[in-house]
Amino acid sequence: MLSFLDQPHTRINLLTGEKILVSPHRSKRPWQGQVEDLPADNRPEYDPKCYLCPGNSRADGTQNPDYKESFVFVNDFSALLAESSDGTYNEGDLLKAETERGICKVISFTPRHDLTLPEMDLPAIKAVVDLWQQEFQELSNKEWIKYIQIFENKGAIMGCSNPHPHGQIWAQSSLPVEIEKEALQFSNYYKANAKSLLSAYVEIELVKQERIIVDNAHFVALVPFWASWPYETLVISKRHVTNILSFTEEEKEDLAKTLQELTIRYDNIFQTSFPYSAGMHQAPVNSGDQQEWHWHMHFYPPLLRSASVKKFMVGYEMLANPQRDITPEFAADVLRKQSTTHYKRK
Amino acid sequence: MLSFLDQPHTRINLLTGEKILVSPHRSKRPWQGQVEDLPADNRPEYDPKCYLCPGNSRADGTQNPDYKESFVFVNDFSALLAESSDGTYNEGDLLKAETERGICKVISFTPRHDLTLPEMDLPAIKAVVDLWQQEFQELSNKEWIKYIQIFENKGAIMGCSNPHPHGQIWAQSSLPVEIEKEALQFSNYYKANAKSLLSAYVEIELVKQERIIVDNAHFVALVPFWASWPYETLVISKRHVTNILSFTEEEKEDLAKTLQELTIRYDNIFQTSFPYSAGMHQAPVNSGDQQEWHWHMHFYPPLLRSASVKKFMVGYEMLANPQRDITPEFAADVLRKQSTTHYKRK
Ligand SMILES: O=P(O)(O)O[C@H]1O[C@H](CO)[C@@H](O)[C@H](O)[C@H]1O
Ligand SMILES: O=P(O)(O)O[C@H]1O[C@H](CO)[C@@H](O)[C@H](O)[C@H]1O
Repeated sequence: MLSFLDQPHTRINLLTGEKILVSPHRSKRPWQGQVEDLPADNRPEYDPKCYLCPGNSRADGTQNPDYKESFVFVNDFSALLAESSDGTYNEGDLLKAETERGICKVISFTPRHDLTLPEMDLPAIKAVVDLWQQEFQELSNKEWIKYIQIFENKGAIMGCSNPHPHGQIWAQSSLPVEIEKEALQFSNYYKANAKSLLSAYVEIELVKQERIIVDNAHFVALVPFWASWPYETLVISKRHVTNILSFTEEEKEDLAKTLQELTIRYDNIFQTSFPYSAGMHQAPVNSGDQQEWHWHMHFYPPLLRSASVKKFMVGYEMLANPQRDITPEFAADVLRKQSTTHYKRK
Repeated sequence: MLSFLDQPHTRINLLTGEKILVSPHRSKRPWQGQVEDLPADNRPEYDPKCYLCPGNSRADGTQNPDYKESFVFVNDFSALLAESSDGTYNEGDLLKAETERGICKVISFTPRHDLTLPEMDLPAIKAVVDLWQQEFQELSNKEWIKYIQIFENKGAIMGCSNPHPHGQIWAQSSLPVEIEKEALQFSNYYKANAKSLLSAYVEIELVKQERIIVDNAHFVALVPFWASWPYETLVISKRHVTNILSFTEEEKEDLAKTLQELTIRYDNIFQTSFPYSAGMHQAPVNSGDQQEWHWHMHFYPPLLRSASVKKFMVGYEMLANPQRDITPEFAADVLRKQSTTHYKRK
């Protein structure tokens, strides 16, 4: 594809406008650095000490219901609070601060303590998608909420403090940094082309077939041309919708299928429960027309060489520029070669 | 200071223009997540298997000299290469890539395998500062180099693959993302105020005395008002200079003292070799007048609660916004209370 594909080069991230550095030759480097512990793989179906299992008590004494599908509640240690007095602080335009209001929720994906998303069956994943949609509706009914972040941290290596399969929703009164970046990119493209940036991007990727992993009636999952994390992927709805509320039953079924297939492929790469942080980006709510936005979901998995050696985004990456060692096309090849049956089921 | 200091709020990072979310109440959250291994603390003065120790052979067979101070060489697994054929790629303004040229160097800080920066004596640290200055000069003599990133990854938890005290320099043909952000902030402020942004910022911090850690004739080290990492600090030169080349002997002595004192305080917080990624930001080179730039050095340490529990910048942080649990003022208090004698010397 690129004549310089095997040489160090930069690529532009369409969604942020920022670039990433690709160093393809560097994967040959030997690794003597940190090796992560493998996730324990002998969890019981029910753990009496887990604050997410049905019927158990949480930090504040509340008892979880005996739920059969997914279950949602307000985070007992929320980073954002709904009740906050308003305030701004400005000292010489140099020290600037502002209060932020918000609501943080936790979603248990299933009563089963021993599962993860790729090990759940399709109806169970579909139930999670339904709950995301309901929660998005309910939170956006509050006028003061401007943005809703739905996400999951999977695996201890990604800061997850409870292996019971769960995700989070943080809804807040202003737009986060990453959303402001994407808003600008979506809106610039829409103004110039009267078309969604991601619709245009999906079209070109479907022609090229170099980075596509999943392609069904309503969604594609691909390794974006500008991926930073080794096996980073992007799930995009084929229909141009601004948020999850527009998804029909059929689309939600397909989203569940897409997530199942993608995460099974992840687990199969290193035959391990593949850690990641994943989450949807959608249009801000209660903020007027947002037609330029296009629903999508990012997967940022850290593993690089094996189940226990990850990519470190550290010195150069924090101070200068994200950098990756394998090409996005190589990562896409690896993902495409994986079976769609989970390795534990074989 | 802020009436809403104990409530969730956002602060603006003067150097990037981006905000961070502060959730002070959240540090009370119990932690059941990942616990890191403590760094081994029994390294010999000389390790026959270390590719940085004097006289040993490296990956490509080259033998290290029998050096007595610091020592520099081109990285055997460079992410950037000086010889690269030129190329750009553009497909419908959607897939965009470009070749990038560069030079990656490794600096061994001392022949002693068992030390770290905070355990080295002042003349040894001063020798490192001298070498940084020399290397900056030499690399900027190459017309095609536009930016030089001097940095250190300290500790296995920060992706460092060899405990022998060392840093890196990546010099390259274009400006990295983080430098572009700072360039804009420096230049906007300079245009409006005919003054360095960081000179103005240091003035206000020296009056407030709420976040200052080290204050000597030529440098201050402080927890910036907008710190993201729990114990993040910023070292700023009192004199407005654009890069390390302008530093006099006296300033270099003071920089060595500042780094020594700051890193000793870090090690003393949890009585451990405190991991971090640190690096200087300086004006781009071979890029015309850069008067608005002001030399500074960032320290990004990950530890939050103890020697083995770090802050995870994961789901919400990657997808939405950096978030912190303790206030910058609390972190500054903790750092200020530390002794300036290293705990191992007591
Ligand atoms: O160059 P090293 O020390 O082998 O590698 C380390 O620092 C680099 C620059 O920050 C990173 O790209 C690597 O992920 C990290 O492991
Ligand atoms: O909310 P949790 O699961 O306790 O915490 C985890 O996710 C949060 C949101 O990404 C992060 O701020 C924390 O650092 C991480 O440990």
